[in-house]
Amino acid sequence: MTKETKTIWWNDENNSVMMIDQTKLPIELVVIEITSVERLAEAICHLEIRGAPALGVAGAFGVALSAVSCVSDAKFVETVAADAEFLRRTRPTAVNLAWGIDKVLRSIENLPSEMAKFFAVMTAKNIAVDDEKCCMLLGYKGASLLPQNGTVLTHCNAGALACSTWGTALGMIRSAHKMGKKISIISCETRPLLQGARLTAWELSHDNIPVTSIIDSEAAYLMRQGKIDCVVVGADRVTKDAIFNKIGTYMHAICAKHHNIPFYVAAPTSTFDVDAVEADITVEERGRDEIAAFFGKTTLPDGVPIINHAFDATPLDLVTAIITEKCVIYPPYDISSFRQT
Amino acid sequence: MTKETKTIWWNDENNSVMMIDQTKLPIELVVIEITSVERLAEAICHLEIRGAPALGVAGAFGVALSAVSCVSDAKFVETVAADAEFLRRTRPTAVNLAWGIDKVLRSIENLPSEMAKFFAVMTAKNIAVDDEKCCMLLGYKGASLLPQNGTVLTHCNAGALACSTWGTALGMIRSAHKMGKKISIISCETRPLLQGARLTAWELSHDNIPVTSIIDSEAAYLMRQGKIDCVVVGADRVTKDAIFNKIGTYMHAICAKHHNIPFYVAAPTSTFDVDAVEADITVEERGRDEIAAFFGKTTLPDGVPIINHAFDATPLDLVTAIITEKCVIYPPYDISSFRQT
Repeated sequence: MTKETKTIWWNDENNSVMMIDQTKLPIELVVIEITSVERLAEAICHLEIRGAPALGVAGAFGVALSAVSCVSDAKFVETVAADAEFLRRTRPTAVNLAWGIDKVLRSIENLPSEMAKFFAVMTAKNIAVDDEKCCMLLGYKGASLLPQNGTVLTHCNAGALACSTWGTALGMIRSAHKMGKKISIISCETRPLLQGARLTAWELSHDNIPVTSIIDSEAAYLMRQGKIDCVVVGADRVTKDAIFNKIGTYMHAICAKHHNIPFYVAAPTSTFDVDAVEADITVEERGRDEIAAFFGKTTLPDGVPIINHAFDATPLDLVTAIITEKCVIYPPYDISSFRQT
Repeated sequence: MTKETKTIWWNDENNSVMMIDQTKLPIELVVIEITSVERLAEAICHLEIRGAPALGVAGAFGVALSAVSCVSDAKFVETVAADAEFLRRTRPTAVNLAWGIDKVLRSIENLPSEMAKFFAVMTAKNIAVDDEKCCMLLGYKGASLLPQNGTVLTHCNAGALACSTWGTALGMIRSAHKMGKKISIISCETRPLLQGARLTAWELSHDNIPVTSIIDSEAAYLMRQGKIDCVVVGADRVTKDAIFNKIGTYMHAICAKHHNIPFYVAAPTSTFDVDAVEADITVEERGRDEIAAFFGKTTLPDGVPIINHAFDATPLDLVTAIITEKCVIYPPYDISSFRQT
């Protein structure tokens, strides 16, 4: 994607954050400018920006935004810390958000406020650049696992729109496509918010990679018909024992196992939470409206309760390989060597 | 449900068919009157009426409607036969539609047209009454399989709205509820047309049976958390080797097996196709709009192709028991003794 359509970037001219408003896709490609931490938090909550790596960059830019817009030297440390905490609480499951926030916070510890402002912006920009490099590395490492000719199923959007650019799961697909592999993609629409239909199908067709959209529950039936060669998804958090990713990932993993289809997870090491296990993690539950209405039109009778987990957990025994920017990991999985520094 | 909210019935006053327009639920309860075969075919195609048993009744009423509205004695047989063929082709997968049509056709063979008109209506009304009795019998036989206290997952709508009244899968649930069992229902919304959210949640909450709505891909995660005690679904067709039911059924069956959760299929013997196997059956593929737009609002970029099977096939080895109006059948399944007469 060109700079104009990069997912998120820092605007030096105004000391502001630029991003695609992903809720407007695929109808319109709208770039918004964000100048306050409050507006950034709102954008994260409303999923104007989403995807684990992109949230890492957004968290980092958020701390930078807080730093550069703080007018009081006396209250600088306190203000930035409070803003960081506020941002951290917007979404609990993706580990990258907190990771990006903490990385910038650590880079400005004990610095005088003027220098801290400069370092906050530089560190955040580094995180964005590192994310681009990371996706490229991951994509090329993972591409070798994809078939020379075949069909790859993916769920949600682990694409350029979930990162600064290129993508993780879709990064593998982009790299394979660039290497000349003839792969076509089945994109699960991904209820409730349809990131698969709105974002993945948009991204891939934009890049002329063949993509077909299905409802999530069609995936197993296509596997039964021999129409899926492998599954590739992203990850919002990897613990010692499980992959946390968009709700629906777990069901695809079970169905892939049932049909002996490889199930790959594209996960930058920034998503690794090496000391945690599945039971430690809070899975975000989102509001009723995402399920009970569609574009404001009621689809569920009033008063009927809902359950709406944003993510689910897939135990590692259903995962064929985890692809990181450093290497491809196979079972038995031991992620302890990937501790973040 | 009272007569006013019965799914479909014959109106003697006007020799017409009355039915709930299910596309309007849950927002409005609208009863429509149908006076022509063409309008009935349209109602079936647009899913104003759907569900295997209800389609059997609709097919039967359709032939009756053709018979009573035929003004030419000379062309009576030909006209009714042509209308029957026209109706038969509206939906290919549910066996009951053809079954209801054929049952009425057979009842009027070789009769003079005046008598044939009378018999067509009587036979069709009998099919509707038999469907009610069948659901009641199936419901009470199946209720014993449901837990005394527990949570039952269902997909799509195999309820009163899929039949004349009471329902098959939801008939089991209604019967269990009436017997005093404390069961609550998890209703999968059932993309693309949300029959689970719009119809099942509406029916059950209308009857004060506790119901919670989820997106289809949440089911496996709730199973993982131990929150589902069994799965009950309906069937559009049962062959020697497979259950054809709403797309998504197969994935729930695989996930139920993975979690050792019983997977029950409520199927009147009218859905049995005792000589057929999975490979013989045409699975209806429906249009792009069901997936690419929602209430007219685009959710998929222009030009991205889709796959939209209305049904999938679940092999019988994933099914714990099939509940009919005659008995409960267990593996190894042999449906040959249920040949229709």
